[in-house]
Amino acid sequence: MTLKKLHVNLFEMNCVSHITHGLWVHPDNNRHRFNDLDYWTELAQLLEAGGFDAVFLADVIGTYDVFRNGPETALREGMQIPSNDPMLVIPAMAAVTRHLGFGVTFSTTYEPPFAFARRMSTLDHLTKGRVGWNIVTSYLPNAARNFGHDDEVRHDQRYEIADEYLDVLYKLWEGSWDDDAVVQDRENRVYTDPTKVRYIDHVGDYYKVAGPHLCQPSRQRTPVLFQATGSPAGIEFAGRHAEVVFTGGKSHETIRRNIQTMRDKAVAHGREPDSIKFVVMASIITGRTDEEVAQKLHAYGQLLSVEGSMAHFQLPVDLLAYPREEVVANIIRRERLASLFLDYFPPDETVGQALDRMGSLDQGYFFVAGTPQVVADRIEQWLDEDGIDGINLRQFMSFETARDFIELVVPELRRRGRYRHAYEPGETLRERLFGAGQAKLPGNHFASRYRDPQALKQPAAPLRFDG
Amino acid sequence: MTLKKLHVNLFEMNCVSHITHGLWVHPDNNRHRFNDLDYWTELAQLLEAGGFDAVFLADVIGTYDVFRNGPETALREGMQIPSNDPMLVIPAMAAVTRHLGFGVTFSTTYEPPFAFARRMSTLDHLTKGRVGWNIVTSYLPNAARNFGHDDEVRHDQRYEIADEYLDVLYKLWEGSWDDDAVVQDRENRVYTDPTKVRYIDHVGDYYKVAGPHLCQPSRQRTPVLFQATGSPAGIEFAGRHAEVVFTGGKSHETIRRNIQTMRDKAVAHGREPDSIKFVVMASIITGRTDEEVAQKLHAYGQLLSVEGSMAHFQLPVDLLAYPREEVVANIIRRERLASLFLDYFPPDETVGQALDRMGSLDQGYFFVAGTPQVVADRIEQWLDEDGIDGINLRQFMSFETARDFIELVVPELRRRGRYRHAYEPGETLRERLFGAGQAKLPGNHFASRYRDPQALKQPAAPLRFDG
Repeated sequence: MTLKKLHVNLFEMNCVSHITHGLWVHPDNNRHRFNDLDYWTELAQLLEAGGFDAVFLADVIGTYDVFRNGPETALREGMQIPSNDPMLVIPAMAAVTRHLGFGVTFSTTYEPPFAFARRMSTLDHLTKGRVGWNIVTSYLPNAARNFGHDDEVRHDQRYEIADEYLDVLYKLWEGSWDDDAVVQDRENRVYTDPTKVRYIDHVGDYYKVAGPHLCQPSRQRTPVLFQATGSPAGIEFAGRHAEVVFTGGKSHETIRRNIQTMRDKAVAHGREPDSIKFVVMASIITGRTDEEVAQKLHAYGQLLSVEGSMAHFQLPVDLLAYPREEVVANIIRRERLASLFLDYFPPDETVGQALDRMGSLDQGYFFVAGTPQVVADRIEQWLDEDGIDGINLRQFMSFETARDFIELVVPELRRRGRYRHAYEPGETLRERLFGAGQAKLPGNHFASRYRDPQALKQPAAPLRFDG
Repeated sequence: MTLKKLHVNLFEMNCVSHITHGLWVHPDNNRHRFNDLDYWTELAQLLEAGGFDAVFLADVIGTYDVFRNGPETALREGMQIPSNDPMLVIPAMAAVTRHLGFGVTFSTTYEPPFAFARRMSTLDHLTKGRVGWNIVTSYLPNAARNFGHDDEVRHDQRYEIADEYLDVLYKLWEGSWDDDAVVQDRENRVYTDPTKVRYIDHVGDYYKVAGPHLCQPSRQRTPVLFQATGSPAGIEFAGRHAEVVFTGGKSHETIRRNIQTMRDKAVAHGREPDSIKFVVMASIITGRTDEEVAQKLHAYGQLLSVEGSMAHFQLPVDLLAYPREEVVANIIRRERLASLFLDYFPPDETVGQALDRMGSLDQGYFFVAGTPQVVADRIEQWLDEDGIDGINLRQFMSFETARDFIELVVPELRRRGRYRHAYEPGETLRERLFGAGQAKLPGNHFASRYRDPQALKQPAAPLRFDG
């Protein structure tokens, strides 16, 4: 039996404080260098030397200004503001690497699909097929106000928009140019055979796009499609579209169930059960000895900012203003806060317990602190028992978190046959995930219908989001 | 008296055939490599070694499909299709250079200002202040149809939109963050002083944008503002906004007049007469001997595609279908073509003469072919008599055109004191154009009003475009 190998992406964001708030102040942390090109080129070279699949870039297009009724906490903490565009660091990282993949987050809600399609095709060309796209539908109220809206678009409607957005993208990426359209025939002075390129003439509820796509076909055509799910609408959407799903869960059972739900949904959409890979955010703190691990836990833990976490969580009350022994659920009911906050706080949790939990390094099931053997044991359990395929490595310190993983955990995983020894030369990101010859979306993925030019004339049935 | 030095940008586009159609087939031309990252990194290193000010990237966001009622000619010729996003090659070029500037074309008509503001600030950070923006308002009918419109937005309305677009950008770039907002105070755990960052709360006729800007202040804040003018609306717009104007003219007199008109307009907007630099597109073919020049003229000339030019020019008739001796103006009147075509063809020009002219290397006043001495004589005349400040070097061959200029013309210009000998370490693109200490827009530029937070609350008077 071949052992399942771990896929590893570094979880990054083009900002000071992404998800481990407060740690930017550590003197060895490089996060304050995010505005500098050499931060990104050094990081890319480190990750490629360590055999990472990809660097995965989160993004938001607004500010967290719900907590304490303003952006002050986010600004003070450097919490996802300032933050720069994530796409623009990819070409620089691509210029100094040959194999590392790049996942980039982009929202379907506020920017036109034609321009985005071209940007992703450009990245796929420049990287020779090393890009993936994390599909999101924006959730910050401030993001809506940055793009002309008064309020956020309703959740299910955001998915309707996203579904049509992808329909447009697929027509451009998969249907507008044939594989053999570009002939580069110097003798007859023909760069492209015009009979193999076409308008898409998309007319839908939200978009009207003529085409043709401006880019010739790239290695992957459609970038690898990543998505985080949770809601019924999100699961329906992922069933049709996603190739890599970010999942999670608080227990072995919930994780297995979440994965099975998604596989069933993919099958319902005519796809193979293993056409989706499952990735979780993992927090890993390691060291050569237990003492070194304990030192790191202490050093990181004492810097964590609970205020940063409350602002990130968009909490409409400041728990620091309440007595530690009060029960959070009572505050939520008394202040008439949205019921979703009741899901986040266990019924009996006190303010003190909640603050301690939010200020803790341990953010749930996929947390492990220990020597490389302990970490590798746990990772094997995640792979074999929980059924995940890979991790987004949460960074406490850059570059220390990635370097520790590469220097300590990777050799141990390799000894156990759980981590690749080298990249396959010239492979695309999709091939790295799904195997040689799989550079493009498989034939049973929804998008592949547009490889038949006739399909461009037949509107696809939009997904229904009744959930 | 100090001699005026020449500013030089390479005129580029992320495509096969930009403005010298047909020449991509030459065996020594590298244009077919535009999809590859190393095309751009090699080019950038060549230009920096030659002391160029910048590489200047043109762009369109649609296809030329008027000529022969379809995109076939453009596709066959590789004429600006396929074409990739221009912004995304900049970070790769920045990663392998330290001084070279980057000008990028972006249209204000179809994409939201908030996202564009962030992308340009990101580029300004990554390049440490080496970026400029060529402001355009899109003119291809197909571009409109790629972004949900049935027809192009009316010309003067495009400028109204652009004027408000820049108002939004200036508020984000100049007004949203104070210079000293980012404190990086590790001891007190403060990355940004929240009292020095603000919402912009822009509400106008076309845009509604809350802010704050997501990026901290970059070296230049506002990128260097480039614009091509011609129409009365364009001149009015440039008077308020532009720092570098692409100009031209068919004679010494028209060039001087165009420059003077622009300087007067800048003064009418409260700016200094020399607050605008003037750049023309120049065609330069050079060689070590007259014979070498003649060989290049012949080799390039016989490859030029007149069909590519007709498609580029969006000509609604195919002149190749008419007798060579027929007068073009008569065809234009008979076929009831737009009167603007009458401006392009002299009253008596025959079809044969027009085809020869469109298929000629010599595209007007700023064309010179000769040994370096001949070229340098002509450049000195452009600088001193015509009053220009720089050129966008038109490429016949990449990299041959740039390499010839660097190896042959630059040494001759340096001997004459007409070309800088070295870059100033750490200077921004704006400082290179306007002098040390001028990294940001000057205090009498319209945008500078937003450095006073109170100005964000007082709507600026929009420009009037009655022309």
